[in-house]
Amino acid sequence: MRQPVSSSNTAAIALLTDFGLRDNYVGVMKGVMAGIVPQASFIDLTHEIPPQDVLAGAWALGTGYRYFPGGSVFLCVVDPGVGSTRAPIAFQAGDWYFVGPDNGLFHFVLAEQPVHTIVKLTNQAYHLPIVSATFQGRDVFAPVAAHIAAGRPLSELGEMLSVDTLRQLELQPPLVKKDRIESEIIYIDQFGNLISSIHLNLLPDFFERSTVRLLFPGKQLMITERRRFFAASDDEQQPFLYVDSSGYIGIAICNGSAARQLDIQRGEAATLLFNNK
Amino acid sequence: MRQPVSSSNTAAIALLTDFGLRDNYVGVMKGVMAGIVPQASFIDLTHEIPPQDVLAGAWALGTGYRYFPGGSVFLCVVDPGVGSTRAPIAFQAGDWYFVGPDNGLFHFVLAEQPVHTIVKLTNQAYHLPIVSATFQGRDVFAPVAAHIAAGRPLSELGEMLSVDTLRQLELQPPLVKKDRIESEIIYIDQFGNLISSIHLNLLPDFFERSTVRLLFPGKQLMITERRRFFAASDDEQQPFLYVDSSGYIGIAICNGSAARQLDIQRGEAATLLFNNK
Amino acid sequence: MRQPVSSSNTAAIALLTDFGLRDNYVGVMKGVMAGIVPQASFIDLTHEIPPQDVLAGAWALGTGYRYFPGGSVFLCVVDPGVGSTRAPIAFQAGDWYFVGPDNGLFHFVLAEQPVHTIVKLTNQAYHLPIVSATFQGRDVFAPVAAHIAAGRPLSELGEMLSVDTLRQLELQPPLVKKDRIESEIIYIDQFGNLISSIHLNLLPDFFERSTVRLLFPGKQLMITERRRFFAASDDEQQPFLYVDSSGYIGIAICNGSAARQLDIQRGEAATLLFNNK
Repeated sequence: MRQPVSSSNTAAIALLTDFGLRDNYVGVMKGVMAGIVPQASFIDLTHEIPPQDVLAGAWALGTGYRYFPGGSVFLCVVDPGVGSTRAPIAFQAGDWYFVGPDNGLFHFVLAEQPVHTIVKLTNQAYHLPIVSATFQGRDVFAPVAAHIAAGRPLSELGEMLSVDTLRQLELQPPLVKKDRIESEIIYIDQFGNLISSIHLNLLPDFFERSTVRLLFPGKQLMITERRRFFAASDDEQQPFLYVDSSGYIGIAICNGSAARQLDIQRGEAATLLFNNK
Repeated sequence: MRQPVSSSNTAAIALLTDFGLRDNYVGVMKGVMAGIVPQASFIDLTHEIPPQDVLAGAWALGTGYRYFPGGSVFLCVVDPGVGSTRAPIAFQAGDWYFVGPDNGLFHFVLAEQPVHTIVKLTNQAYHLPIVSATFQGRDVFAPVAAHIAAGRPLSELGEMLSVDTLRQLELQPPLVKKDRIESEIIYIDQFGNLISSIHLNLLPDFFERSTVRLLFPGKQLMITERRRFFAASDDEQQPFLYVDSSGYIGIAICNGSAARQLDIQRGEAATLLFNNK
Repeated sequence: MRQPVSSSNTAAIALLTDFGLRDNYVGVMKGVMAGIVPQASFIDLTHEIPPQDVLAGAWALGTGYRYFPGGSVFLCVVDPGVGSTRAPIAFQAGDWYFVGPDNGLFHFVLAEQPVHTIVKLTNQAYHLPIVSATFQGRDVFAPVAAHIAAGRPLSELGEMLSVDTLRQLELQPPLVKKDRIESEIIYIDQFGNLISSIHLNLLPDFFERSTVRLLFPGKQLMITERRRFFAASDDEQQPFLYVDSSGYIGIAICNGSAARQLDIQRGEAATLLFNNK
């Protein structure tokens, strides 16, 4: 466990929610934290997760956290179950800290990083004095995140939990076979690019193989072209395979929305076919 | 009046406007302030107030400011009367500072907090050298907010005003009777939840009474259920009463918009009916 | 070239992109920078530039940068040509630093400010260890901007370039004649106000002349009224000329969208007609 930070230190607190930016909810959480750790630097990961879409939140967190410096605290609230039985938790995984509901939001982080300490946030001394029934982000998660950023040890925040009790999303991991990887579309970004659950690590020579195609079995649709870049001159409506900046293999159309033009939803089965070298 | 802050101090400046985030207006105001008080921490309360909707701005400010640390400065611009006769003002109320147009935007703050000092922003030494006719947020309010955050006494910023000269919104306060409270819908949040002007303080035993119902007289519509939580399992289309995180009594539908489904606008009369204990 | 900043210094890094706020792209860029310069203060100029609209990005930057303190670093990514041949660059112009693609995004800055040093970002020691093909904002521009904010001299970041090699937008400069200025609509703001390419500097006595009119030759439409303010009482549908907060002459309708009501697009020819004094 790291030492308490000195007051001249600047801890980064990253926020990820489905609150949107119209109401004052995000600003109020930052106000609560500024009262506890004035020198904190707040960084918005996004607040435009579709309401209650835990998978989309898990993806935005899972593809983003590793670009933040060690010691950063991630305050994450996408929480269809406010007030229900899922536990409010905080934990350290790798060099980072995470605070939020135990509902699958930390799925990709837990899959990649060793978890050091997990607590259920039962110590009310670190919550706001009055906890509302409907806004745990403000009343529980924000003050806890700020106390962690100020160097408070996790063990003071509540009861220790075991990592194997944490909830995972029910996702089919990609199935790697001799000449194919069976996967699904796991995320659609704001440009309509379709991201598969196949990380480039599963096929590092993606660009070197003579043939790589992606089949949507449910649509009887095959994508055969690979591109390294989205070039300005490529303005045709041809869908192609690329490696997304998240590291996963995706399908895009230049200056268009692959999701809309191919009529593909999240969860659609997608099979990557390749020749044996 | 507090002492000037030292340069190692971090003052929080909270911003609330109807400028939206498409143009560069909000960023430019922060640039102006960063030039005056580089160590400031900027926190956006919201910039998505509907254009020129002073009541919505007053609500977002009034339900949010008290979560910020004492000494925070609120820079607020929702200003249908740019260039008209309303005065640009700054004042201290409770432990916080406020800067903006005197047009009702500070209604709820003034109703709750003792006001220490109010000034009309007549001292041009604290404005930008060239003041445009159309962007007082950048040219007057932003530099003044930054100078306050840097510890400048309010009295230097302009002429002293009396608190009873400040403009209030024309709102009907809730009317408390023996078996009812007559109120109105004062805010509709981005989820379509309807917030009444009845603070829980007016009926602290809201959940303990055997019967509490809300009548929309204009719609001949009665809401009879109360809930403490928005639980994930409650997916029916039944509207219910709850206590909003703002502390006011609201009407919601789980996973739906009460505003749309009940066809209620802001300003709609709403009467809370309850039994005598 | 300035000296390296000390660690107690707070450098402002302003961001301008067309990434939107739904995905985690902007937050991830800030995470990368927080790892290099923890004391940086991030200010969003805007992330809602229409996708790949370099002119709109250039305008938002060109009308905003001068309100930021000297030493601020502008990280700008509106980049239809990711992966194509345009160079990634950084330069100092006036008292400010700029980082982004050489594609015209810096048009208005270059037109106004003396350029001290320009480099092509060829030194990979200042990039992320793995550079993706599709997200130079995260992998190249963000770390470079952070290193500049930390005081790193531009000359270490890559090969020196000459200012006359930089790309300019193909814009028709306003044509000043004896009784008229021929220009075009160069920007339409989020309220639908039409901004011409005529800066008030070209006609400083705009409000003093007895007659000033604006003609849209392509529409056979003439605007004859001038106003100094958008006053709350002016709710009629009359279009009028005003001086935008950017310093350029614009056309607005009170409480309405001039762009929609007059059916004007960006690029429309606009001629300012005035009497000789």
